[in-house]
Amino acid sequence: MADYRDMWNGLGIDLETHDKLCDALPVLFGETFLDQKDRPAAMDYFNMVIAEVHGLRIKELLAHKERGGTVVGSFCIYVPEEIVLALDGLLVGLCAGSQFWVPAGETLLPRNLCALVKAGMGARISRTCPYFQSVDLIVGENTCDGKKKAWDILADEAPLYVMDMPNKKSPAGFALFRQEMEALVRRLEELTGKTLTAENLLKGCERVDRKRRALDRLYALRKADPLPLSGRDALLVSQIAFYDDPERFIAQTEALATECEERVARGQGVFPKGTPRLLVTGTPIVVPNWKFHAIAETSNLAVVVEENCTGTRYFEQKVSLPEKKDLASLLDSLAHRYFDGIHCACFSPNEGRLDDIVRLAREYGADGVVHLSLSFCTTYQIEEEKLRRRLAAEGIPFLSLETDYTPGDEGQLKTRVEAFGESLRRHR
Amino acid sequence: MADYRDMWNGLGIDLETHDKLCDALPVLFGETFLDQKDRPAAMDYFNMVIAEVHGLRIKELLAHKERGGTVVGSFCIYVPEEIVLALDGLLVGLCAGSQFWVPAGETLLPRNLCALVKAGMGARISRTCPYFQSVDLIVGENTCDGKKKAWDILADEAPLYVMDMPNKKSPAGFALFRQEMEALVRRLEELTGKTLTAENLLKGCERVDRKRRALDRLYALRKADPLPLSGRDALLVSQIAFYDDPERFIAQTEALATECEERVARGQGVFPKGTPRLLVTGTPIVVPNWKFHAIAETSNLAVVVEENCTGTRYFEQKVSLPEKKDLASLLDSLAHRYFDGIHCACFSPNEGRLDDIVRLAREYGADGVVHLSLSFCTTYQIEEEKLRRRLAAEGIPFLSLETDYTPGDEGQLKTRVEAFGESLRRHR
Repeated sequence: MADYRDMWNGLGIDLETHDKLCDALPVLFGETFLDQKDRPAAMDYFNMVIAEVHGLRIKELLAHKERGGTVVGSFCIYVPEEIVLALDGLLVGLCAGSQFWVPAGETLLPRNLCALVKAGMGARISRTCPYFQSVDLIVGENTCDGKKKAWDILADEAPLYVMDMPNKKSPAGFALFRQEMEALVRRLEELTGKTLTAENLLKGCERVDRKRRALDRLYALRKADPLPLSGRDALLVSQIAFYDDPERFIAQTEALATECEERVARGQGVFPKGTPRLLVTGTPIVVPNWKFHAIAETSNLAVVVEENCTGTRYFEQKVSLPEKKDLASLLDSLAHRYFDGIHCACFSPNEGRLDDIVRLAREYGADGVVHLSLSFCTTYQIEEEKLRRRLAAEGIPFLSLETDYTPGDEGQLKTRVEAFGESLRRHR
Repeated sequence: MADYRDMWNGLGIDLETHDKLCDALPVLFGETFLDQKDRPAAMDYFNMVIAEVHGLRIKELLAHKERGGTVVGSFCIYVPEEIVLALDGLLVGLCAGSQFWVPAGETLLPRNLCALVKAGMGARISRTCPYFQSVDLIVGENTCDGKKKAWDILADEAPLYVMDMPNKKSPAGFALFRQEMEALVRRLEELTGKTLTAENLLKGCERVDRKRRALDRLYALRKADPLPLSGRDALLVSQIAFYDDPERFIAQTEALATECEERVARGQGVFPKGTPRLLVTGTPIVVPNWKFHAIAETSNLAVVVEENCTGTRYFEQKVSLPEKKDLASLLDSLAHRYFDGIHCACFSPNEGRLDDIVRLAREYGADGVVHLSLSFCTTYQIEEEKLRRRLAAEGIPFLSLETDYTPGDEGQLKTRVEAFGESLRRHR
């Protein structure tokens, strides 16, 4: 691997602390992914991306900036990548998926807060995430109390812009979202020195649409039994979608889908046919949080679909392009895709999510649903009660798990997951 | 005391469980309030209100309904009492201040959630709060994730309407709030069968304005040293403002203020002159949550002002009546009073609250600020970091306390409060 120390140094990375992270990640990745049997060969590309997660991709982002482009970071799928791309920006998800960053986050944030928000803050203030160090702007959004209030502290540490969100899917709520999207456009135009036009926005839409369709195609193959691809590997691909080069990502995901199609055609799978199948829903699962998938898939269960922000919610909904392709109409369509199409627990009520879970469980042949939430994630944990009632009415088995990024509860989780798997087998 | 069992029975109260609450409350009240030395005689009225909290006032609410009026319940000072009064409604705060209701709330809500939200839900589902049983409508509002998501569950249990809130004080945020106020007017008109007019709204504004000014007058007397009134008693008065008959409350508060003025004139106080003075800020302190005030004031400290929703935020800001007194202009003024004037931690950033705390600490001669938050109250707990920095810059001593409604931590809190008091004495 190339030596990136000069690059990291130039970004203000705390090299000594960052080295510890660089030492730990390959071990975790090896145990979780490389030990799997019979992986598709096309996963090699995604292995490489993780091996180079703080290296090659950062080098590319810096080269993009050298050429006059900008890099925008975010923590949420409500930030429209179409607009960022249209203005010659690149949108990257920021570091927030490891316990490594939590203690630093806890120096500024309460301990009783979800690990994702604490890790995000910690990654920045410990200067150990080269994405945070490379971005020209972070676009935050008010989707939960934890992030909303943390932005006000992060604003003292990093260049930050916050999009407001309503809490109810009402016409007034849509009006707020639409105006906030317009305000974001102005802020990004100011940042990039470029102007959003119908032409460049259409190109941005087209590119993001192809990314979404590549993920669609890959996910559709997870409906097969036996599964051509493990849940872990599918999760890894969608996690990588958040920061990889879009064109290369699309090509590699299509190649993986082709290989999986061939597997499906010949009935080749990574788990025995009939392995109990899980739909996972709840809080986002960001790199390198592979904890639940690893536990489930080493317990004779298969994860077949993720109804969350790092799963179907990221790509299922497409932009319906308007008849008239002027800028205002395009922005309207875009706003509707995000506002109407994404069923985040930041909204109350949020029936659309419950409908999606039931629909996806049937489409993917899931035997049971696992609600996976990070501790202190208030929105998802309360919404769980509604989901529990809905799944009981639909006759779909349900398991609730609460966890964080520490390894301490893995044994207990495994016991519960195995017991759930046994009950699914008995009830078939 | 009158026997209200038939009335409670008619309201669907669980009498057996409710009896336990009725037995416990007078003991707690006696220990906290009646043992105080040299209380103003005018506090007798407020003692009576608490003694009759589930009796006489409920009887009055039911009589109001008999006469064709409506009763609206709320959990938040963003619900405009002016509008409710204008439509011949009465607005009452709902039960949410005791551990008594928390276990029932935890049957539907996560344990890692603030005691206030859990108690509110528990009070309803355990059928032990006659206010919940008497209201024609509950008006909820999206000011935190806990309440926002709990509404969706409470809606299955009780008649509920939810006002959305933005999370940022922006022009688009104001537009959302203004529209939501308009939508609330329509819902309340539908409920009451009455129409909001400039005339009845002006009357509602005038009545609420007098209530706010009565509290202003009382609170101003807390600036004196020695204090004419304990912090506990002032807290009790403002808690009672949320559900008492407005006219009677105003008259009794004015009488108490007159008595306190006489005390100030002759230098009579409830604590020795020079007792260290505290400003308390943070989460709302609702009946019968008197825990912190009781601890502080039995530790040779005095609470002189509360910067929270059950303190200054409830009454400090007045409605600036517009030149043109048409309905739309009045609603605009009202919306500005609530949106611009209240600095709730639901907003990010929320600098106005920090400014208020510093200003109030100086106005009331506070020696130190105590940030009092309920466990798992994410918005206030994160905002605390900003407050800590601001107070350090201003040179104002600061103590952070996190608690809930259980008595288990009282000893530990007392030790910390006493130590803070000692440090305030030393630094004078």
